[in-house]
Amino acid sequence: MASREDRFVALMRALAPDSAARGLLDDAAVIAFGSETLVVTHDMMVEGVHWLPGQDEADIAWKLVATNLSDLAAKGAQPVGVLLGYALGPDDARFARGLGEALAAFDVPLLGGDTVAGAAGARSHGLTALGRATTSPVPGRNGARPGDTLWLTGAVGAAMLGFEALRDGVPDRDTGAFRRPMPRLAEGIALAPHVSAMMDVSDGLLIDAQRMGHASGVTMAIASAQVPFAESLPPSRQREAMAWGDDYELLFTLPPGVMPACFAHAIGCVTEYRDNNILVDDAVPQGSLGYCHDLPNL
Amino acid sequence: MASREDRFVALMRALAPDSAARGLLDDAAVIAFGSETLVVTHDMMVEGVHWLPGQDEADIAWKLVATNLSDLAAKGAQPVGVLLGYALGPDDARFARGLGEALAAFDVPLLGGDTVAGAAGARSHGLTALGRATTSPVPGRNGARPGDTLWLTGAVGAAMLGFEALRDGVPDRDTGAFRRPMPRLAEGIALAPHVSAMMDVSDGLLIDAQRMGHASGVTMAIASAQVPFAESLPPSRQREAMAWGDDYELLFTLPPGVMPACFAHAIGCVTEYRDNNILVDDAVPQGSLGYCHDLPNL
Repeated sequence: MASREDRFVALMRALAPDSAARGLLDDAAVIAFGSETLVVTHDMMVEGVHWLPGQDEADIAWKLVATNLSDLAAKGAQPVGVLLGYALGPDDARFARGLGEALAAFDVPLLGGDTVAGAAGARSHGLTALGRATTSPVPGRNGARPGDTLWLTGAVGAAMLGFEALRDGVPDRDTGAFRRPMPRLAEGIALAPHVSAMMDVSDGLLIDAQRMGHASGVTMAIASAQVPFAESLPPSRQREAMAWGDDYELLFTLPPGVMPACFAHAIGCVTEYRDNNILVDDAVPQGSLGYCHDLPNL
Repeated sequence: MASREDRFVALMRALAPDSAARGLLDDAAVIAFGSETLVVTHDMMVEGVHWLPGQDEADIAWKLVATNLSDLAAKGAQPVGVLLGYALGPDDARFARGLGEALAAFDVPLLGGDTVAGAAGARSHGLTALGRATTSPVPGRNGARPGDTLWLTGAVGAAMLGFEALRDGVPDRDTGAFRRPMPRLAEGIALAPHVSAMMDVSDGLLIDAQRMGHASGVTMAIASAQVPFAESLPPSRQREAMAWGDDYELLFTLPPGVMPACFAHAIGCVTEYRDNNILVDDAVPQGSLGYCHDLPNL
């Protein structure tokens, strides 16, 4: 059964016939503008959904910037600037500080936005990131072809462990992977001219690989023994980590015989469609594939 | 004393040194991109602040589009597309319907966005509107000069009356001005090459005129007898209507002797700074000038 979000996105798709929208199936809109190509993305974060109540506002700001820039990275785009939609909260100065740190770290200016107050209950913020395409065509999720190799720029699982440590107040545990993710901007720009498909892993390796397989009309066959995991992850939790997002690595495909322009791990191959858009060790994965917005309490 | 929003915006200004951000003092960011100029704005709407709980979701969607396009109108920009940040709610299909009606009415495509669920309490949505500048330089709030005439494209007060009728459930009263504002896109494009300054009136005629006066370092001297009001507005409420927003008319200045390229009302003149950035009938206005986000209950 389609989730509420899926149903809403299907309604939206009917309103987005423009090719720049890429059928709302991609990480960002890609718009021919003047003599160049503009890449634009907008992501929201909601208290209690994307961050823990009481979490440091500076980290929330950082993550809001990083997750949007990760969408630009998936397109190989160079950031041009961001617009912030901000709900005033308990510590606006801390938020401003974290925002400043992120903008400085990724060398991107704040260009505008909006500030609101007065909402009772959970706050939410939005960020729009604008980028300049560095290659043409701009990579999408839909270009993976049978015979391609599937690659991942880095390990998964650290964000999950960081989230748990933060939630449970575990001292001396590194929570940075969850609080302060690093978008793979340089890698995205290096890879973009060569990949057949690319996206960032935000909701979980399995669900995101499935989305790429679906958009490309192929099967992504992942070999779980080749997937890189965070060093501190217990082997018993590897399957779980493949369905937990927030690590913001880049997932991409290359034609056979082409090696990546940056360090990456070959984690599987692309085949003609068989049984499902994703297979793990030649079987259809059971259980959760990743984060889904269709929460049962709504 | 500075409001919480003012203090936060001051922190943001330090992060926005790029000239495209216009010091966060304008309706939109203006970015040289490729061979053209991109105009981008992002506005949010919050339940209980920008719309009444229980209000028709289709009207909320319409207004979210219209208010952002109004910012593009203030720059004389032609809309290119919008990105939606949507919090799933009680009637997503109605929201989608109103969004579709607005996008069709203003001939602008949906390009992307994000959908979230799970927030307890008030929902909020955001919209980013992208436009193409049609004139150079792109008008700002800061170009009003002593000797200019101050103009307004239409009446104020109808949105206030519409809001009250909707809130109080008054039958047979036209609430369209509040529910379904019309951005002055064609007027903005016609006016942009000629104005010395332009903005849209979203928070109230007086507060917005004050902002233009402040950005330009001048005094806006409004003659209240020249301000056009909604026909149904009781004369006793004219002062109140000048401090109520949501009418989305364009406020602009023209050099002496220049007539507007569209129908408009001359409502005052620009002088060297004296006493205040806004005067009404030669006096500093007392009391509220318009909508302010610094709500006392926070």
